Amino acid sequence: MDTMRWEDGALLLLDQTKLPEKTEYLRCTRPEEVAAAIRRLAVRGAPAIGIAAAYGLALGAREFKGTEREEFLRHLRAVKELLAGTRPTAVNLFQALERAYRRAEELADESVAAMQQALLDAAHHLFAEDMEICRRIGAHGAAVVPPGARILTHCNAGALATAGYGTALGVIRAAHAAGKVAMVYADETRPLLQGARLTAYELQEDGIPVTLICDDMAGYAMQKGRVDLVIFGADRIAANGDTANKIGSYSVAVLAREHGIPVYVAAPLATIDERLTSGREIPIEERDPEEVTHIGGRRLARAGVSIWNPAFDVTPHWYLSGIITEAGILRPPFKEAIQKALAAPKGE
Amino acid sequence: MDTMRWEDGALLLLDQTKLPEKTEYLRCTRPEEVAAAIRRLAVRGAPAIGIAAAYGLALGAREFKGTEREEFLRHLRAVKELLAGTRPTAVNLFQALERAYRRAEELADESVAAMQQALLDAAHHLFAEDMEICRRIGAHGAAVVPPGARILTHCNAGALATAGYGTALGVIRAAHAAGKVAMVYADETRPLLQGARLTAYELQEDGIPVTLICDDMAGYAMQKGRVDLVIFGADRIAANGDTANKIGSYSVAVLAREHGIPVYVAAPLATIDERLTSGREIPIEERDPEEVTHIGGRRLARAGVSIWNPAFDVTPHWYLSGIITEAGILRPPFKEAIQKALAAPKGE
Repeated sequence: MDTMRWEDGALLLLDQTKLPEKTEYLRCTRPEEVAAAIRRLAVRGAPAIGIAAAYGLALGAREFKGTEREEFLRHLRAVKELLAGTRPTAVNLFQALERAYRRAEELADESVAAMQQALLDAAHHLFAEDMEICRRIGAHGAAVVPPGARILTHCNAGALATAGYGTALGVIRAAHAAGKVAMVYADETRPLLQGARLTAYELQEDGIPVTLICDDMAGYAMQKGRVDLVIFGADRIAANGDTANKIGSYSVAVLAREHGIPVYVAAPLATIDERLTSGREIPIEERDPEEVTHIGGRRLARAGVSIWNPAFDVTPHWYLSGIITEAGILRPPFKEAIQKALAAPKGE
Repeated sequence: MDTMRWEDGALLLLDQTKLPEKTEYLRCTRPEEVAAAIRRLAVRGAPAIGIAAAYGLALGAREFKGTEREEFLRHLRAVKELLAGTRPTAVNLFQALERAYRRAEELADESVAAMQQALLDAAHHLFAEDMEICRRIGAHGAAVVPPGARILTHCNAGALATAGYGTALGVIRAAHAAGKVAMVYADETRPLLQGARLTAYELQEDGIPVTLICDDMAGYAMQKGRVDLVIFGADRIAANGDTANKIGSYSVAVLAREHGIPVYVAAPLATIDERLTSGREIPIEERDPEEVTHIGGRRLARAGVSIWNPAFDVTPHWYLSGIITEAGILRPPFKEAIQKALAAPKGE
């Protein structure tokens, strides 16, 4: 099952809000449709929304009917702003849009048609690159997984959060292929239950042993000695290694440290935002109270109750044993490791 | 709204599985009906299930039609076993049944009819006593609440978990009456959402400011400095102070300590099980996987996924700042404080 694919001039996006009950694809031909899909989490996961946004930019580029270069770039910037305004926390969104936009801008002597094609190529490139990055993250990460490992993960950093294969679940897939995974504990991840709906589903499909638990059971699982390793993804990593990820990741990290269990983040280098010196600078999205008060249209709490619904939290770098990237595993001190990894020549 | 009441020879139990949508009372005239209600959590909360079971025993006593004393006690023991077999963790259930049974047994020279009446009186007494105990817990506990306090609680240790007023929520009610409560954060408490359905509801009804959060947001709330104090109830407390309470309480306690936030347990002395030297001996109930996979009849995770559903966890005593009881606040070292409190003459 593809997270997204390009087909007949349209972006087909798997509507993840319908999983696991229904497998339905949204056919997007306009950037507004892609923006709406990102906003309502039909597509989610930091790498996946970056790629989807790049396709959205390519769709927006195609709508331009003129031939004037500056006018085209002005139009393109408006589309870019639309897509960048969908969600604030994951930095991959902004980076993917910037990379694709620059690709067009650099083609100074080319026609608008050539730039339109270049934007679609950029999206295709990001897609293929992410697939390759996830494979490399998996290969590097499998090395930290001990034989017979019981691994706890939070939210979904899987194939459905990326072009395919996944970051945290990429590590788990690679470790499983190496025969090292005894059990994966998937936190259900309230409010939107990405663990229950997506992670448990992905792992079941791949025949990887998985046990679903509620978020408030993670501490007890650790206390009972059922967890050897924690791995989760990232939506933005500051220059010092502080990591924003789905709400609840911080709690899991604190609990893991209390039990002497190593915590790894798995994420592409593109998730690192060098401009931010610490996680305190990462903007945290707060979402609709209805995500907490309702499940599948059914009200769980009485009307009028006050809700706080932050979508992410920040795990300070000192809770992390390592950050697993396509360039290898970054270890403390993270600031230096990150500088070195970002300075190294890219393998592109 | 009464958690339960005795009316026209029947026990009326508020069906808490229907809250907050519907206020419906189950009319129980047979012990089997009370047992079923306890098993499916129509009535829940350690003190409340103890009282309900005592009424169930009185109902069972009434069913006995003979006049032979030993035969009556044999019948009574069978009813007691039925009721004691409903849930394994909360000790109040067993203690309430034992107290009521002994009340009948002590009446060596009385008729069966007198013993039947004594059992109903014992249930009424437990009910009235619990009300008084909760008031005292509230009064003692309010002293540890600082002015302007933001208090986090997990699950429901409220009026709905007791004869009325509540243990943890009793403290919050008393502190609110003293003008000291700025905000209560209620963890929704998966899987059965007692926080969302019951705690938020109770506090809203009483005009106490409450914000509902998902369980995986508690750590972030603490990291952001939004919580001054944690208070939760107890289902069983070992002789060393280790406390079994609703699953997730342990996680909250670990997170609180990491942030330097005091954690208090509020519970009647009857929750202390002196026979157990530590929390490792407390039996932990594991419940139906459907509680995790379904909400309100709607499936959240795909069929066939493996589930772990422990209903309680144990917080080791060293995470606790104090145990708030009707006899005052027990402080570390808990073993000594507990011995002293249990040895003191009861105010009955």
